[in-house]
Amino acid sequence: MTIALSSLLATGVPPLDAAATAAADARQAQLTKPAGSMGRLESLGSRLAGMYAVCPPPIPEPAVVAVFAGDHGVHAQGVSPWPQEVTVQMVANVAAGGAVVNALARQVGASVCVIDVGVAGALPPGVDAVGARIVDGTADFTTGPALTREQAEAAVLVGAQTADRLIDEGARLLVTGDLGIGNTTASAALIAVFAGADPGAVTGPGAGSDARMLAHKIAVIRAGIERHQPDPADPIGVLAAFGGAEHAALAGFLVAAAARRVPVILDGVIAGAAALAAAALCPGVTAYLLAGHRSTEPGATAALATLRLEPILDLGMRLGEGSGGVLAVPVVQAAARLLREVATFDSAGVAGRED
Amino acid sequence: MTIALSSLLATGVPPLDAAATAAADARQAQLTKPAGSMGRLESLGSRLAGMYAVCPPPIPEPAVVAVFAGDHGVHAQGVSPWPQEVTVQMVANVAAGGAVVNALARQVGASVCVIDVGVAGALPPGVDAVGARIVDGTADFTTGPALTREQAEAAVLVGAQTADRLIDEGARLLVTGDLGIGNTTASAALIAVFAGADPGAVTGPGAGSDARMLAHKIAVIRAGIERHQPDPADPIGVLAAFGGAEHAALAGFLVAAAARRVPVILDGVIAGAAALAAAALCPGVTAYLLAGHRSTEPGATAALATLRLEPILDLGMRLGEGSGGVLAVPVVQAAARLLREVATFDSAGVAGRED
Repeated sequence: MTIALSSLLATGVPPLDAAATAAADARQAQLTKPAGSMGRLESLGSRLAGMYAVCPPPIPEPAVVAVFAGDHGVHAQGVSPWPQEVTVQMVANVAAGGAVVNALARQVGASVCVIDVGVAGALPPGVDAVGARIVDGTADFTTGPALTREQAEAAVLVGAQTADRLIDEGARLLVTGDLGIGNTTASAALIAVFAGADPGAVTGPGAGSDARMLAHKIAVIRAGIERHQPDPADPIGVLAAFGGAEHAALAGFLVAAAARRVPVILDGVIAGAAALAAAALCPGVTAYLLAGHRSTEPGATAALATLRLEPILDLGMRLGEGSGGVLAVPVVQAAARLLREVATFDSAGVAGRED
Repeated sequence: MTIALSSLLATGVPPLDAAATAAADARQAQLTKPAGSMGRLESLGSRLAGMYAVCPPPIPEPAVVAVFAGDHGVHAQGVSPWPQEVTVQMVANVAAGGAVVNALARQVGASVCVIDVGVAGALPPGVDAVGARIVDGTADFTTGPALTREQAEAAVLVGAQTADRLIDEGARLLVTGDLGIGNTTASAALIAVFAGADPGAVTGPGAGSDARMLAHKIAVIRAGIERHQPDPADPIGVLAAFGGAEHAALAGFLVAAAARRVPVILDGVIAGAAALAAAALCPGVTAYLLAGHRSTEPGATAALATLRLEPILDLGMRLGEGSGGVLAVPVVQAAARLLREVATFDSAGVAGRED
């Protein structure tokens, strides 16, 4: 392990602040509403208090979606109906503000940045993406490791540096995003390993595989696992075996955000795979993670169950890019806002229950 | 039926525009995302196109929450742990911006107005609520009708005039809100009648009844239904039998909004009861209704099932006030925004599938 990664992980993640959480729980009961009537917004608000270590917590804004982009050598195995050049094209589309994640970010007042951590082809000139490429697309994990250990560690560090930079620039809520044709295959492999699940149970159609391609995708993942015999206690080894660079970067992003007490909303199956890797690197990180939505990809549900995270939205989405994460931003912000802005029974002169 | 109500209902509700819906469905397939990958946001966007009769639909903004407030004579039967004066106090709290619905509205960029359509006590001077009171609290429905037919019709008209006024003032998305101690009892009675359900299956704890009070609440509703023998084909009669004034007003609000092709997000069980009344008055109205969330009150789920509406959020909330409706505003706006703002494969130069 490099010195830089060791030092990132040695910093560690602070536990949630129990006093702030308890103060938030107590405050929920004083607000002008029946106790418990805001359901999950109440527990979410109390968790935010624990993350920020203050009650009431600040409203988590501004929110920034970090879209990590990478390509996958396993694409050569025919695991996606989309050509690999779509990754480059979608990086340009996101950078130009034309993708789904951009429209949703505008809706909720979030901003979007794109980080090229491992795209295969050259980006067209003038594309507004952060260049932090550690590999020109991963290798095919059916024929060898997708990344070297050094590349995997470097990608983790790119993600951590991205979180640090965004927080230094003012972000107080982060959202995971991803781009990469073939990345649901790598995600399913990672989830199968970290969750100890059968590939058949955690692999889905991704961006549109038909039944035959899905069966092939599962077979490819089984072959990869058979070849690499990954050890879930060695998360860098698992990330190196299957990639992608964006999964490794997201894992570092989550660890660094948690280390700075900044909550991160996970998007879908790519984020779920990365979160399992992050939790393997640094178990305390999970306390700072929020599940934006339940993607229809089965691996996403398996990852959230392993992480014991309950999704905020469940709208049948499966796009990636950060789309399901960013759409949950107003709900997360609302949970903090209630603790900050709602009058108490005393302050508003509202009578309590008679029983 | 008064001439005014007859003329409201005679106006009728236009059907969704099939051409705009079809154009939106076709456009969904051209946007830079795998077909269907935005799940319910896609069907929601296409419905909005049909409501507004144009593709892409406008972003539904500004959004306004109309909080109709009323008191309930059945409160005397001991169906709520809260004293009746809380209705007046909460009207003042909402008008002052201190309630949950206000905080959530600020989060999503919506505004809130409060309409006193049937509160029992006097509002304190200076409270910024629309005075449109048709009764000083309803009568106890266990001893007689909650409202006269004339009062019920007048309340329907207040709601319709409110929708017309808000739309005239620029609202392009409306959200139902409600205040009234005892109003989950009236709601459960209305839902039992309109959905043909047993009161035991559609009555919940509301703002915090314990098991004994809940059993009593169900018995009170059974007694009311036994007494009034309501006919669901006579919605004014049903609204008069059980009240409240706010349910009748909300029913008129929904009909008038739909008549002007403006979508309305329903909040919880009070809105569900009112929507059943609105659909009985004017069946086409349901096409313009969106279910903001699934309240934990069982009557809410029964009403939505009868209306064939799928809730957008499911966060264990049960407050009322419009809180669960207003929190869904960004999702509804996002659905339209995708159709307006996301690049197409052609415009962004993104390659299509290879199969």
